[in-house]
Amino acid sequence: MGFILHTQLHRDCAEVTDLPLTRVLLMKDARFPWLVLVPRRQGVSELTDLREADRMQLMSEMTRTADALKRITGAHKMNIATLGNHVPQLHLHIIARFREDAAWPNPVWGSGPAQHYVLDARERLIYALRAALGTTE
Amino acid sequence: MGFILHTQLHRDCAEVTDLPLTRVLLMKDARFPWLVLVPRRQGVSELTDLREADRMQLMSEMTRTADALKRITGAHKMNIATLGNHVPQLHLHIIARFREDAAWPNPVWGSGPAQHYVLDARERLIYALRAALGTTE
Repeated sequence: MGFILHTQLHRDCAEVTDLPLTRVLLMKDARFPWLVLVPRRQGVSELTDLREADRMQLMSEMTRTADALKRITGAHKMNIATLGNHVPQLHLHIIARFREDAAWPNPVWGSGPAQHYVLDARERLIYALRAALGTTE
Repeated sequence: MGFILHTQLHRDCAEVTDLPLTRVLLMKDARFPWLVLVPRRQGVSELTDLREADRMQLMSEMTRTADALKRITGAHKMNIATLGNHVPQLHLHIIARFREDAAWPNPVWGSGPAQHYVLDARERLIYALRAALGTTE
């Protein structure tokens, strides 16, 4: 069965790249450097629904992207979470946090409306992420 | 170097059991069946600080405890997260969520003060978790 990205993730995010298991997205919110990893598996909603090999691959891709985002942004702390109370398609948040950001020390969810990226800044971040992840598309 | 649980986790949680890598704790908040897994490694604050073998073991223990908590509680959705904006010791939240719980559909953090468990209810949940995890201590 083909993979179809949930409409809300499609609307809220820009595409960064595809890793072997996950589609890597950037949340369109300039307040937080915020990636979303979506395993390209249809009908999976819980981490525990993934097969074991996929879970191990997800851990590897999660580490790789969190590392890249931390290095690029110089974040003070990484926040990683899979919630899915609104969007049932399994997706993983990887968020670079700073002691002076708009929500610190609280989680980012519910911290007010997203702020638009200046388009150049978003594209620069996406290019830097692709370079760090070793993907060129 | 010996493992020392952070004082805030010690205060906020009750001990459930030790798995090969992590100490499994139950948050003292009757509003949410909420486990906290703490890798028994000193000085580790980010998931990406763990060695690869420990990360894979963490994924395995995370899956095992999330599965057990979901089966015991009949949760509608599991929320899994590592934030650490307040407590620098690496710890992972595994929370059973219900469409009628006190914070749904928002995350549990910042949803008001914890409610005390009736002691019997907390002990029953801990026993059920130990049985499901195959630990008897």
